[in-house]
Amino acid sequence: MSDTTLLETFPNPKPERDYLIEHSFPEFTSVCPKTGQPDFATVIITYVAEETCLELKGLKLYLNAYRNEGVFYEKVTNLILDDLAAACSPRWMRVVTRWGPRGGFSSVITAVTGSAPAGAP
Amino acid sequence: MSDTTLLETFPNPKPERDYLIEHSFPEFTSVCPKTGQPDFATVIITYVAEETCLELKGLKLYLNAYRNEGVFYEKVTNLILDDLAAACSPRWMRVVTRWGPRGGFSSVITAVTGSAPAGAP
Amino acid sequence: MSDTTLLETFPNPKPERDYLIEHSFPEFTSVCPKTGQPDFATVIITYVAEETCLELKGLKLYLNAYRNEGVFYEKVTNLILDDLAAACSPRWMRVVTRWGPRGGFSSVITAVTGSAPAGAP
Amino acid sequence: MSDTTLLETFPNPKPERDYLIEHSFPEFTSVCPKTGQPDFATVIITYVAEETCLELKGLKLYLNAYRNEGVFYEKVTNLILDDLAAACSPRWMRVVTRWGPRGGFSSVITAVTGSAPAGAP
Amino acid sequence: MSDTTLLETFPNPKPERDYLIEHSFPEFTSVCPKTGQPDFATVIITYVAEETCLELKGLKLYLNAYRNEGVFYEKVTNLILDDLAAACSPRWMRVVTRWGPRGGFSSVITAVTGSAPAGAP
Amino acid sequence: MSDTTLLETFPNPKPERDYLIEHSFPEFTSVCPKTGQPDFATVIITYVAEETCLELKGLKLYLNAYRNEGVFYEKVTNLILDDLAAACSPRWMRVVTRWGPRGGFSSVITAVTGSAPAGAP
Amino acid sequence: MSDTTLLETFPNPKPERDYLIEHSFPEFTSVCPKTGQPDFATVIITYVAEETCLELKGLKLYLNAYRNEGVFYEKVTNLILDDLAAACSPRWMRVVTRWGPRGGFSSVITAVTGSAPAGAP
Amino acid sequence: MSDTTLLETFPNPKPERDYLIEHSFPEFTSVCPKTGQPDFATVIITYVAEETCLELKGLKLYLNAYRNEGVFYEKVTNLILDDLAAACSPRWMRVVTRWGPRGGFSSVITAVTGSAPAGAP
Amino acid sequence: MSDTTLLETFPNPKPERDYLIEHSFPEFTSVCPKTGQPDFATVIITYVAEETCLELKGLKLYLNAYRNEGVFYEKVTNLILDDLAAACSPRWMRVVTRWGPRGGFSSVITAVTGSAPAGAP
Amino acid sequence: MSDTTLLETFPNPKPERDYLIEHSFPEFTSVCPKTGQPDFATVIITYVAEETCLELKGLKLYLNAYRNEGVFYEKVTNLILDDLAAACSPRWMRVVTRWGPRGGFSSVITAVTGSAPAGAP
Repeated sequence: MSDTTLLETFPNPKPERDYLIEHSFPEFTSVCPKTGQPDFATVIITYVAEETCLELKGLKLYLNAYRNEGVFYEKVTNLILDDLAAACSPRWMRVVTRWGPRGGFSSVITAVTGSAPAGAP
Repeated sequence: MSDTTLLETFPNPKPERDYLIEHSFPEFTSVCPKTGQPDFATVIITYVAEETCLELKGLKLYLNAYRNEGVFYEKVTNLILDDLAAACSPRWMRVVTRWGPRGGFSSVITAVTGSAPAGAP
Repeated sequence: MSDTTLLETFPNPKPERDYLIEHSFPEFTSVCPKTGQPDFATVIITYVAEETCLELKGLKLYLNAYRNEGVFYEKVTNLILDDLAAACSPRWMRVVTRWGPRGGFSSVITAVTGSAPAGAP
Repeated sequence: MSDTTLLETFPNPKPERDYLIEHSFPEFTSVCPKTGQPDFATVIITYVAEETCLELKGLKLYLNAYRNEGVFYEKVTNLILDDLAAACSPRWMRVVTRWGPRGGFSSVITAVTGSAPAGAP
Repeated sequence: MSDTTLLETFPNPKPERDYLIEHSFPEFTSVCPKTGQPDFATVIITYVAEETCLELKGLKLYLNAYRNEGVFYEKVTNLILDDLAAACSPRWMRVVTRWGPRGGFSSVITAVTGSAPAGAP
Repeated sequence: MSDTTLLETFPNPKPERDYLIEHSFPEFTSVCPKTGQPDFATVIITYVAEETCLELKGLKLYLNAYRNEGVFYEKVTNLILDDLAAACSPRWMRVVTRWGPRGGFSSVITAVTGSAPAGAP
Repeated sequence: MSDTTLLETFPNPKPERDYLIEHSFPEFTSVCPKTGQPDFATVIITYVAEETCLELKGLKLYLNAYRNEGVFYEKVTNLILDDLAAACSPRWMRVVTRWGPRGGFSSVITAVTGSAPAGAP
Repeated sequence: MSDTTLLETFPNPKPERDYLIEHSFPEFTSVCPKTGQPDFATVIITYVAEETCLELKGLKLYLNAYRNEGVFYEKVTNLILDDLAAACSPRWMRVVTRWGPRGGFSSVITAVTGSAPAGAP
Repeated sequence: MSDTTLLETFPNPKPERDYLIEHSFPEFTSVCPKTGQPDFATVIITYVAEETCLELKGLKLYLNAYRNEGVFYEKVTNLILDDLAAACSPRWMRVVTRWGPRGGFSSVITAVTGSAPAGAP
Repeated sequence: MSDTTLLETFPNPKPERDYLIEHSFPEFTSVCPKTGQPDFATVIITYVAEETCLELKGLKLYLNAYRNEGVFYEKVTNLILDDLAAACSPRWMRVVTRWGPRGGFSSVITAVTGSAPAGAP
């Protein structure tokens, strides 16, 4: 379902320092596997890079590729985390997805990999 | 009073990871047992799943079943937590209820079960 | 469906002046006639009284009586306006209902009777 | 009930110009004549002065004198307008009272005397 | 491109009164015809019904049908207005589309048909 | 000055769990002992109950009894905490008072008794 | 009291068009003539220039010159309007002063000279 | 200074209707001709097209071309309006520039050409 | 430069408890020693009293005494902390100054003395 | 690329105390090295000074010098931190850059050097 070949990286310009990189993407959309109705989310990716950083153009193509895919909230959040972590091998990474209201519920899924850096907000 | 048979679960798609699931429901209503007047609350459920996750459709039916029940703030918050925890056996779960103003007071009840995951907000 | 016998009035303390009275009620709830699911709205009633004003306690009982009634947005808004206007014969009255999101839509219905007072906001 | 002897005025420094003076007072409190419970409001007074302006110290004493008086929303708003207009004979005056939630309702009463100045907000 | 057969109507419950119906839909998405990149908008539909009202379920299907269509902001706004007006023959209708930032620009398109009702906000 | 006989309690429905109860009351008023001018505050009471919970009706009467009492910010905050803690013997309790601007200053007093529960916000 | 020699102007770059110029200055301070206590205001100047525009550096010096002057709200607002209008002879000018809370009151004074341009906000 | 050759247009898809097009651009920057310091503004362009609409890519290049130009607030606002109006001959056009604080002042310049459409916000 | 004789204290009404007292003062102004231009700040004083508390009237006179003094941000923040701590010998004290924009920068200086109380926000 | 000769310092007025200095600069702009398009950011610099503090005028010149430089988000954030830390040898320093939306992404980069002071927010 997810196309990790779209992801690209570039060398971390400051690998000797643990610093935080955060990209918020308010335009994620996928499809509910049950109802076929579109879902909408803001995806927030935060990480401490090891040797490579995620390039934004590829990250956008990767996220846009879910547009017509049927995925559940919990699964897609973990899938994005696994794919991005596999692509850039970060020291630490967190993916948060904030979903628009469905049936009265607004949902937020938060998944983390690696050990949290000191001072991570 | 509470009907736990309405709750349904599905398998946790990533049981090997501690990740946070949060569902906010701004449309909870019950009835004051003393005055018979309706009460209104936002219910915020946050948890780390073990083997199963809460299905949203059943969760909505469960919460809507309180519509004409007489319950106190403190009791219903703990009851929802106990029922949801019994239904999905989470590693950790928190239920917060934020009640609209009554007699000048705005109330918030927060109940937790299990040990907080590292990095829980 | 609507129970106008619950409404009560009291004499307008300043009938010689056109002045605006506004009551906002964020706790209106009814039931969708199609799906049986509860709907939630803020009801905003604004009027210029003629000889009588609406008493708040009765107004609350009247609005709460819709709690388990099946009504459409458009119909109930006009019905509330008709009932309240019949109860207090205002010089001008407006009823606005702001409904929580359903299927992605947030709706607002605005109905007016009588001629707008100069300077009405 | 209302003590207009507390009000004081000073000469309008620019009587040849129609200009707007607005004083907002978020600390008005009176008592519900029915329940004996305290009510709280923000009072917003806006006017175009003729020959005299309202002095703030006396205005505060006048508004504070309602602290333990039993008054209805609609009556007290018109009473304040009448008293203040009598005290300073403005070309135009508006009194708005915004009341904290009572029984679920938040109310706003708006009373005006005189003809609105061009460009009044 | 636009599929008006998805739209459904129901009889206006109060045709003898000019009243405003507004539906906001924050989950519209289409595709830029030039770049192939997805666009996102909030669509706000406001109208005064003549004999029929727009049914929300069909309206959602109609709007969702643009998901993979290539359309320009200006064109799609007028197209939605024309389609909806054709479907329910309103006395007055306005369609506003608010688009997320693209190349630094946030755009809003507002198209109207019919003569504005008195007191339209 | 403070009338603790107005306070009432009810049995804690879940004494085996440490959970947080919070009541915010934006309508506290007392009198400055120096100037005789009224003071206004929001009082926020947060606690973990032991065997009994505070009943809201009595809590309101207790807080309203300060209406015409002359008290300083620092003293009344500690007094409320002492009275409420004496009435319900909580495992932990915090009282925060947020005062409206006086002479340019906006003040907040925060007093706590008992040991903070794990996860107290 | 007011030092108009500090004001400077520059030629209106587009005198053939009626367009609006607005400068907001949140850092105005003067002294209460009664109590000697400092007062603070935001001053908002809006105008349609005739032949000259107000230069900002001089305008700042002019407004700062009130720092230790004792002036009443109503008087200083009209004085600023008169001084600025005398300095640049605008087709239309409005001065609004928004004062920080004093004795519970927050005040706004609005004075205008000239005839309002079509489309003035 | 301004390079109108960068502007491009496309045919108005609905010339038979007066509808509003608005583009907000929060990333305008130019240089103060006096101090050489950079200035920052949000530019809001609103218009009713005649036969052609402004293409966004060219509009961005046009606005970005001011990056290192020395221009005064009043002049550049009128210049942008003149250039854009010349490029697409709109029935009505308004340009608003909102400038970040300089020397304590936040400024807004609003220039209009053509006759305002009915219902223009 | 700073006049500590203006400060007054009163006995701490609850010295046996560590509780937080916070006073926010949005009307601090001083003068830039370099340019002679006025600076504006909000000063937030938070402390745990030992035997005495700061009296607000004297605190205001003390802060107002900086009105025409030339001081740098960093220096005046530490000076206020030293003066206030000398006046009331608190167990812990923090002074925060939030300065309005100057040359594009908005600055905040935070200085602390004593050991932070458990539960200090 | 970065011109550290523009930076100036002054002696820390209170070197014996660890206190926080924060300067927010919402007007940073540079150029994307790939597309040549301008980027915009708010830069927030927070530090605990050792012997010298950063002078604001030089800091502004330093940040403005990036105006026409092509730099990536991650690199420029670390570069600013390295340059500022080299200039004033702080005990602790953090640089945060918050970038306006590009291709749908809003990015924040956070880099720190030195050991965090107790009580750093």
